[in-house]
Amino acid sequence: MILKLNVKLHYRLSEPMDLLLQIEAADLVDQRVRSTEIWTSDVAHFSRVAADDGIGERIWIRAEGDFSCTYIAEIAVDRPALDISALPQTPLHLLPGETIKHLMPSRYCPSDQFQAFVDAEFGDLAGGARIAAMRDWIESAFSYVPGSSHAQTTALDSFVQRQGVCRDFAHVLVALARASSIPARFASVYAPDVMPQDFHAVAEVYLGGSWHLIDPTGMADADTMARIGVGSDASSVAFLTAFGSMELVNQSVSVIRQA
Amino acid sequence: MILKLNVKLHYRLSEPMDLLLQIEAADLVDQRVRSTEIWTSDVAHFSRVAADDGIGERIWIRAEGDFSCTYIAEIAVDRPALDISALPQTPLHLLPGETIKHLMPSRYCPSDQFQAFVDAEFGDLAGGARIAAMRDWIESAFSYVPGSSHAQTTALDSFVQRQGVCRDFAHVLVALARASSIPARFASVYAPDVMPQDFHAVAEVYLGGSWHLIDPTGMADADTMARIGVGSDASSVAFLTAFGSMELVNQSVSVIRQA
Amino acid sequence: MILKLNVKLHYRLSEPMDLLLQIEAADLVDQRVRSTEIWTSDVAHFSRVAADDGIGERIWIRAEGDFSCTYIAEIAVDRPALDISALPQTPLHLLPGETIKHLMPSRYCPSDQFQAFVDAEFGDLAGGARIAAMRDWIESAFSYVPGSSHAQTTALDSFVQRQGVCRDFAHVLVALARASSIPARFASVYAPDVMPQDFHAVAEVYLGGSWHLIDPTGMADADTMARIGVGSDASSVAFLTAFGSMELVNQSVSVIRQA
Amino acid sequence: MILKLNVKLHYRLSEPMDLLLQIEAADLVDQRVRSTEIWTSDVAHFSRVAADDGIGERIWIRAEGDFSCTYIAEIAVDRPALDISALPQTPLHLLPGETIKHLMPSRYCPSDQFQAFVDAEFGDLAGGARIAAMRDWIESAFSYVPGSSHAQTTALDSFVQRQGVCRDFAHVLVALARASSIPARFASVYAPDVMPQDFHAVAEVYLGGSWHLIDPTGMADADTMARIGVGSDASSVAFLTAFGSMELVNQSVSVIRQA
Repeated sequence: MILKLNVKLHYRLSEPMDLLLQIEAADLVDQRVRSTEIWTSDVAHFSRVAADDGIGERIWIRAEGDFSCTYIAEIAVDRPALDISALPQTPLHLLPGETIKHLMPSRYCPSDQFQAFVDAEFGDLAGGARIAAMRDWIESAFSYVPGSSHAQTTALDSFVQRQGVCRDFAHVLVALARASSIPARFASVYAPDVMPQDFHAVAEVYLGGSWHLIDPTGMADADTMARIGVGSDASSVAFLTAFGSMELVNQSVSVIRQA
Repeated sequence: MILKLNVKLHYRLSEPMDLLLQIEAADLVDQRVRSTEIWTSDVAHFSRVAADDGIGERIWIRAEGDFSCTYIAEIAVDRPALDISALPQTPLHLLPGETIKHLMPSRYCPSDQFQAFVDAEFGDLAGGARIAAMRDWIESAFSYVPGSSHAQTTALDSFVQRQGVCRDFAHVLVALARASSIPARFASVYAPDVMPQDFHAVAEVYLGGSWHLIDPTGMADADTMARIGVGSDASSVAFLTAFGSMELVNQSVSVIRQA
Repeated sequence: MILKLNVKLHYRLSEPMDLLLQIEAADLVDQRVRSTEIWTSDVAHFSRVAADDGIGERIWIRAEGDFSCTYIAEIAVDRPALDISALPQTPLHLLPGETIKHLMPSRYCPSDQFQAFVDAEFGDLAGGARIAAMRDWIESAFSYVPGSSHAQTTALDSFVQRQGVCRDFAHVLVALARASSIPARFASVYAPDVMPQDFHAVAEVYLGGSWHLIDPTGMADADTMARIGVGSDASSVAFLTAFGSMELVNQSVSVIRQA
Repeated sequence: MILKLNVKLHYRLSEPMDLLLQIEAADLVDQRVRSTEIWTSDVAHFSRVAADDGIGERIWIRAEGDFSCTYIAEIAVDRPALDISALPQTPLHLLPGETIKHLMPSRYCPSDQFQAFVDAEFGDLAGGARIAAMRDWIESAFSYVPGSSHAQTTALDSFVQRQGVCRDFAHVLVALARASSIPARFASVYAPDVMPQDFHAVAEVYLGGSWHLIDPTGMADADTMARIGVGSDASSVAFLTAFGSMELVNQSVSVIRQA
């Protein structure tokens, strides 16, 4: 499947400042970058650095005044539409070293608090079957309510409030997975079926020896998504981090599935 | 300087379970492992995996019943006693990719909350001078009170309560450094001057192009410490993580500076 | 039913300090005090003040060194064993003024967070039937685990962790009731069937025009309890508040149902 | 001093719902209501109930569709412009019963967390002098930033972030006062010098045997304010609580000091 991406950002910076941009789809074995272009308005500095877990890149920018950026790319996604419920759970003591940090509680996913809940509600399931049940439960029990969460909202808050946006749905699934001894991380993605189109966030779980994208909002299928970057939770995967104050002028995201 | 380490752990496991052990000093350019031995009681599984940020290793163990472990090592620490206050701050847009995750808020270090405080209190200082001032402020304003914090205590709680143990002091410094746009991480270390002797935790900040250990409790000097592992905060660097319930039988840590 | 109470407290105070004692069963229409005596060791000050919501009294004490207190009383509890599920919910706009504060979130019962949950899980029930269903759910879903909570634990924490002690069970029910527009408060009580015997805490809900005791741990029946005091949550109903540091020497609570 | 109040509210209710209105200045010895009128659009129910601590009233309303309300009153404020710093602290054991609940931590004022901070920073002051120093510190260290807080923001958050609006300033002072063993409550008031004019919130502390209004934002003087109501914190003193969702159409507050 080919995804055609077209992203435009336009911000007004209140002073000269550093920006961290993470908007380019990563070039990975299951999602190949066929073409990619990125332009920005005049900036004082532009450099690429590796992003977390070896997936994708971030761009450091130093700019002032009006900052605009256009990103156009074509990504060939070649990822099977897997039935996640059949995937086995890797025993803890066989987990690779790089997955361990994704077993641990993070800023927005305090998974240590969810032990009793997952034992009680999903205790008879393991591995992919448990993840699938947790995803289904979130999808049915939670409401997608734009504006219902804010920068401090954690999976604990969302769990109790039973509402949120994609970041919150992903946080809850990540927290429940980690509380089940299944490594889980947060992924920023492009997905053509998310409406209105925007940057999207999903969970990624480690099952059967590899990572699997999973969208607890039910809006996007794993075989249609292109990862931008991954991290422990939303605190480490923002599409734009401004080290100073700025004002949004305009922003648009277009993700088209090529016929 | 040579450190002689001797650590004994003895736990009673309530059932067969997986354990994650991270107690060995890492072999690094500024701390060379001259000899190292580790024994455990009979276990069903023992394997090493890489730990975070490429520093040290973790050990996966599967065991049941009584679990004991002895670790004996000799570490040659060769790290200058630096005056941290003279080190320059790296401009954000020149920070290497692998330091970026340590700019971000984490479970116990919600640095996003501390922006106004660091601006108000330390706004006229930058880089090493700011870190030194923050360390001095913590050391003077906070009380070291064993038992005053628990597994949920964050840097925010400690900041308000002005008390804690080494993990809490480290969390506060890490949070204040990140709020100052200085990458900071949490380090588990051995240090000979910590009394009573135990596993110790300190902060590590990225200044002048490299990482620097710094102990806001004032108990340990950077040139005497041996790192075990590093991570975003205490959630990712425990000396022992048990995936099940266990009971402490006995535990001792000896860190001796060779004459 | 007659309850015979015998409480002994013995503490060692580190300095001269003020103590607030709230251990006497209140004299109310549904629980008559037939006899009551209270002695303390030598104290510099002893005075009674009214407690919250016009229920019971608190005692201000100024003491130093060893402080001991003995309270012996006989209480005639005359409260019907009501089926709470049949009680109607008072429409909000008919609630008396003094119940309104118990509709609002408090320190340990942030009921504003639980709206979506109660709507989703108990939305088809109202009044006493809803309270009974919430009590039954808590009793079955939560584990009573001594030591599992601490002074900062809120109903939010307990809700996620699904464990706690009597104060935590009561906090969760109070929070769920308030989120259902039913006034609810926290009550400190004596109850003969709580094992091991100790001060006990339950919820009290306003249904059908009056307050009703309800124990979500399932240990105590409403017709066997004697109220000591009530308040918004555990922050306002402690049996002993010390304004200084003290050490427990000995404490015993005996509640006997007279044959 | 005479205050002329003119308040207009206009909301659109999404469904028939109950509203709790608390906008009328209370009639008290230091603020006499000389005239008062309140009109609403057609409502199904309108009844007055007593508000907390015997100060003022709340109004229960049942309405649907467009709800509007006009309140016009004239209040004679006769309260001396006291130098709070000279007022003595009442020893704990002499505090009246009704002030005790205002010593305790509440939803937004978790005063139990601030003990070490007040001891360290204000330990050499007591009573009014301490309150004045805390008010001055808040006024100088905090920034008034509209929009910087939200419904979940506590005094702990504001303390660390050092910014907020009137409710947050009041919460911090209330928390610091309680941590100093001085009863403190939250008061909703009208004040002519607050710009832009709006409902205002301040702290009230119990010193020298009575309650004293104090505004840590520095915008309003005690001798110019008219209390609407008081409570433990913002959770119990809202000018309008809607038990359902509604939309603001228009709202205006005018407080004029008569020449």
